Amino acid sequence: MPEALLAAPALHHVGLVVRDLDAAIARYRALGFGEPEVVEAPEQGVRVATFLAGTGLVEILTPMDELSGVARFLESRGEGMHHVAYRVPNILAALRTLEAAGYELIDREPRLGVHGFPVAFVHPRSVHGVLTELVEVPSA
Amino acid sequence: MPEALLAAPALHHVGLVVRDLDAAIARYRALGFGEPEVVEAPEQGVRVATFLAGTGLVEILTPMDELSGVARFLESRGEGMHHVAYRVPNILAALRTLEAAGYELIDREPRLGVHGFPVAFVHPRSVHGVLTELVEVPSA
Repeated sequence: MPEALLAAPALHHVGLVVRDLDAAIARYRALGFGEPEVVEAPEQGVRVATFLAGTGLVEILTPMDELSGVARFLESRGEGMHHVAYRVPNILAALRTLEAAGYELIDREPRLGVHGFPVAFVHPRSVHGVLTELVEVPSA
Repeated sequence: MPEALLAAPALHHVGLVVRDLDAAIARYRALGFGEPEVVEAPEQGVRVATFLAGTGLVEILTPMDELSGVARFLESRGEGMHHVAYRVPNILAALRTLEAAGYELIDREPRLGVHGFPVAFVHPRSVHGVLTELVEVPSA
């Protein structure tokens, strides 16, 4: 059995990218989701709508400018799934052990995510093509 | 407020596609996930490893042949995220209301998913590029 690098990773949210956030919000509202929280994160160049989905979240992102990573994703891949996020109890410990094991980290140190929690991204090259986010949620 | 088509959709799992399931299982085990359940679904042409991830699941699929939808996905998109699944209390009611609202259904009737629960897929064209699965889990 391989040595576990992360303790108890729990599915936290999926991140989806769309061209028109208002249209997507209407679509997901129509599907049965409640009113989302909508925030802007200019430093990341995105506007984000977050829906409660049972014990998980659905995070829908749209670019605020043409230079953001999400804008480039949209340009090359079109609308669709963008990332998967797992809650971990200790993000700093997780990053140090992943780094030591040779995982390619996009964020070597945690940064504040759009919801105010520490987050960090692991490169898809290290996780079979999946942009993988770690998030430490103190009270969850 | 738009009329809700689905009651209480809850994030159930993410579906990921990989080329080498054993390599991916080792990678996710190393990350901290427990032993997955591995099943073959020859009628869908896939082998599937399912990991518990907190209250959600991570489902990793690999094609068993070159004709399956997952094989074609891998050919055109490469490894990565494949679908998002939501648990709904009544999948039949969900499908009828989605159909009446003009959503493009891949499965007009529920079929048994790899875990023995009724499932149905909604076409990405109707959900901003996201292949969306509904699953009815009786005991959840």
